[in-house]
Amino acid sequence: MNHDDWVRKELRGLSKSLGFRYTPLEEIENRLCRIRVAMEKNEVGAFLVVQKMNIYYHTGMTQDGLLFIPLEGKPLLMIKRELERAKVESPLKQIVALKSIRDIPTLIQNHYGKRLNSLGLELDVLPVKDYFKFQELFPNTRFIDASPILRETRKIKSSFEIDLMRKAGEIGKKVYQEAKKILKKGMTEIEFGGLLEAAAKKYGHEGLLRVRSLNYEAYTWHVLSGVTGGIVSPVGASLKKMRTHEPILVDFGTCFHGYQADETRMFSIGRMKQKFIDAYNACKEIHDTVLEETRPEADCEAIFLKTVRLAEKLGYKDSYLGPSGLQTRFIAHGIGLELNELPFVAQGQSYPLEEGMTFAVEPKIVFPGEGSVGLENTVVVTEKGYKILTQVSQEIFQV
Amino acid sequence: MNHDDWVRKELRGLSKSLGFRYTPLEEIENRLCRIRVAMEKNEVGAFLVVQKMNIYYHTGMTQDGLLFIPLEGKPLLMIKRELERAKVESPLKQIVALKSIRDIPTLIQNHYGKRLNSLGLELDVLPVKDYFKFQELFPNTRFIDASPILRETRKIKSSFEIDLMRKAGEIGKKVYQEAKKILKKGMTEIEFGGLLEAAAKKYGHEGLLRVRSLNYEAYTWHVLSGVTGGIVSPVGASLKKMRTHEPILVDFGTCFHGYQADETRMFSIGRMKQKFIDAYNACKEIHDTVLEETRPEADCEAIFLKTVRLAEKLGYKDSYLGPSGLQTRFIAHGIGLELNELPFVAQGQSYPLEEGMTFAVEPKIVFPGEGSVGLENTVVVTEKGYKILTQVSQEIFQV
Repeated sequence: MNHDDWVRKELRGLSKSLGFRYTPLEEIENRLCRIRVAMEKNEVGAFLVVQKMNIYYHTGMTQDGLLFIPLEGKPLLMIKRELERAKVESPLKQIVALKSIRDIPTLIQNHYGKRLNSLGLELDVLPVKDYFKFQELFPNTRFIDASPILRETRKIKSSFEIDLMRKAGEIGKKVYQEAKKILKKGMTEIEFGGLLEAAAKKYGHEGLLRVRSLNYEAYTWHVLSGVTGGIVSPVGASLKKMRTHEPILVDFGTCFHGYQADETRMFSIGRMKQKFIDAYNACKEIHDTVLEETRPEADCEAIFLKTVRLAEKLGYKDSYLGPSGLQTRFIAHGIGLELNELPFVAQGQSYPLEEGMTFAVEPKIVFPGEGSVGLENTVVVTEKGYKILTQVSQEIFQV
Repeated sequence: MNHDDWVRKELRGLSKSLGFRYTPLEEIENRLCRIRVAMEKNEVGAFLVVQKMNIYYHTGMTQDGLLFIPLEGKPLLMIKRELERAKVESPLKQIVALKSIRDIPTLIQNHYGKRLNSLGLELDVLPVKDYFKFQELFPNTRFIDASPILRETRKIKSSFEIDLMRKAGEIGKKVYQEAKKILKKGMTEIEFGGLLEAAAKKYGHEGLLRVRSLNYEAYTWHVLSGVTGGIVSPVGASLKKMRTHEPILVDFGTCFHGYQADETRMFSIGRMKQKFIDAYNACKEIHDTVLEETRPEADCEAIFLKTVRLAEKLGYKDSYLGPSGLQTRFIAHGIGLELNELPFVAQGQSYPLEEGMTFAVEPKIVFPGEGSVGLENTVVVTEKGYKILTQVSQEIFQV
C-alpha cells in the first residue's frame, strides 16, 4: 500500500484503538485565542513557533516543523517530513509541506499576505545559528522574544490538560502500588528505578520527562538511598546497593500525552532510622502547609518563606532543601508539558497563584553522608483551594 | 557531617566502589591539546564552552557551569553549585565557584589577564537569550561559532572513549541475550521496551541517550511491531500489542559514562513471514557491504550511494530507508556522547572516514501498513578496516 494512503485511511483508527486522545479543535482554538490576547497586549504581530512542546500545545502534533501564528487570521503549520500524518494528528486546517528552510518566507507570505514588521520567536531556547538564519530569511523584520508570552499563557491549564495530568498521576499511583513488590534487599538503586519505569510504561507512561533548558536533563526516576541522597544535582540513580534501614527516596515522574505528574515517596528495607522518620514527618507538615496556603491570589514567595520559617521551627534550618550552603530556594515548580513551567513557589517569585495553575510541591531534608527524605505531589489550584493529582498513599513504603 | 567535607573525603571512594571511572588527566589534556590545535587553525583565541556534553568531554564532570579554554594557558572551570564535587570529579586544577552570571567577565579576566578580542561559543545550541547576555557581558568581544571545531575534534575517539563505547555495547549484548525470555505474546510494544531498558539499567546503562538538537529527542528503546513499523518519526513504542508472525524491530541504545552504543535487532513471536525474512537478509547484505567499505580514506557519500544501488538491485528501491517519498538519505550516523556526531554516511557528505571514527550503521526496509525490518551495529574505524562494538548475534530472535 502507498504510505500516504495508509496514513489517511488507517492512522486515526489505529491511534484510537490504542487509547490515544487527539487534541480537539475547540481546545486548540481556545489556546490560540489565549496566545493572541497576549500577543496583542505585548504588541507581537505574528509568532513563529519552533520548539516541539510549544508546537504540540498549539497543534496537537509533535512532528518537526514550524507554526506561524498571526495576530489575525488562521495559523499556518509547516511540516518537514510526514505531511499526511500531521493532517491526521492536528485539527488545524492550514498544513503545508516545508521542503526547505529557504521556503519559509514564501510560504508565510502566500498565507499571510501582509508585510511582516515584527515576528515573535522563542529566544529562550532558539539556538543562535537558527536565529541568524531567520535574520537572513527575514531581513526587514524585527524579532521579539515571545517566550515570556507563551510561558504566561501556558501556565493556566484547561480542564483537558488537567485531565491528562490526572491520568499521568494515575499511572504513578499504580507504579507506587506495585513498588513494594518490586523492591528487594541487595538491589541497586538503578535496577529498582528501571523496574519502576518499566511498570509505568506498561500502564502508558511515555518514558520521557521534559524540561525547557539547554543543559538540564529530566530523569523520570530518581532513587537515592542513604549516602547518595546527600549528593546535590545532577543525580539520578546509581549502581549502589540499597541497604536495610536506609532512607530510600524515590522521585518518580510520569508522562501521558506529553503531560506530566511528579511525585516523591519514601521507601525502606526494614524500619527506617527514627531520625529520618522524624524528618519525613516534618516534610509532611511543610507539604501540608503549602497546600493550606494554596488558593487563587496567594503569593508564591510568601508561601515559600513561610515554609522556611516552619522548617527552622521544626529544627531543620540547615538541612531544609539541601545541605547547608547548597540549599535550593524553591519549594514547588510549575509542571505541565515541561518540568520548569510557571509558577515557581520560591524566593524572589512574588506573584499570585491563579486558578488552573499546576505545580509539584516537594519539601526535602538532606543529611550529608547519611541520606535524604522528601515528599512530593502534583496539585492544581482550584477556585477555592487545590486538588491533588497524584493520589498515592503518603505512608513510608516499608518492605 | 559538613557536606563539603563529606564530598572531599568520601565521594571518590564511593564512586570507585560503584565502578565509576573518572576521566584521567592525561585523557583530558589530550582532548584540550586537540581542541587548541583546531582553535589555532581557525583563529579562535579563546573558547567559552556552555553545553553539558562538551563540558563533560573537556573536564570529566557534568555539573552546571562554564569552561573557558584559552588558546594558551590553563582552562578555567566555573561551577554554579557544588564546587567541591567538581574538584573531585574533574582532574583540572583551576576550578572556581560561579555565584552569578555577572561574575564571568571578572573571573575570566583574573585568570586570563589578556584582552578578549574574540571568543568562541557553541552557536548551534546556545539559546539566543544567553547570547544576548554574553554580548552584554563582553561588549568589546567578537563572537565566533566554535561548534564546528568541537564537532571536528570530537569525531575522532581515543582508546579511552572507544573502551567506554565497547562497555555500552556489552550492556546491550546482555540485554539482547535476555530479550527472548522477556518477550511474550500479547505484551505491548512499550511494555517490552520498558523491560528491556530495566534489564539494561541493571547492567549499568545510564537510562539516557543524547542528541545535539533543540527538538530531536532520543529514546533508548524503539519497539515497532507490524503496522507501527510503517509510521515515520517520531516514533518510539506504543500501547499496541505484538502479534504472532509480525516483524518486531527493536532499536535499542545504551549509555555508559555518557558514551553510547546503538543497535537494532529483529524479533518475532512464531516465524516471521517470508517477505520480512527476505528483507532482513537484504538489510544484512547492505550492512555487510558498508562494513566491507569501511576503512580510513573511504568516502562517506560513496558508501551511501553504493548501498542505494545495492538496495535497488535487491528489489527494495521504494522501501529502502523508509516508505516511498519519505526515504531518509543516510545509512550511518556518528555516535559517541551524542547520537548525531560526525561522520554521516549519507548523501551530500563527501568526506573520508578516519581511524578512530565511530558510527552506527542501520539499514532498514519499510512496508507501509505492514511493518519494517532492520539491522544496526556500532563500529569503530580501525587502521585497516573496522571493529564492531556491539557483539550481539545477528539471528532473528524468534520466541
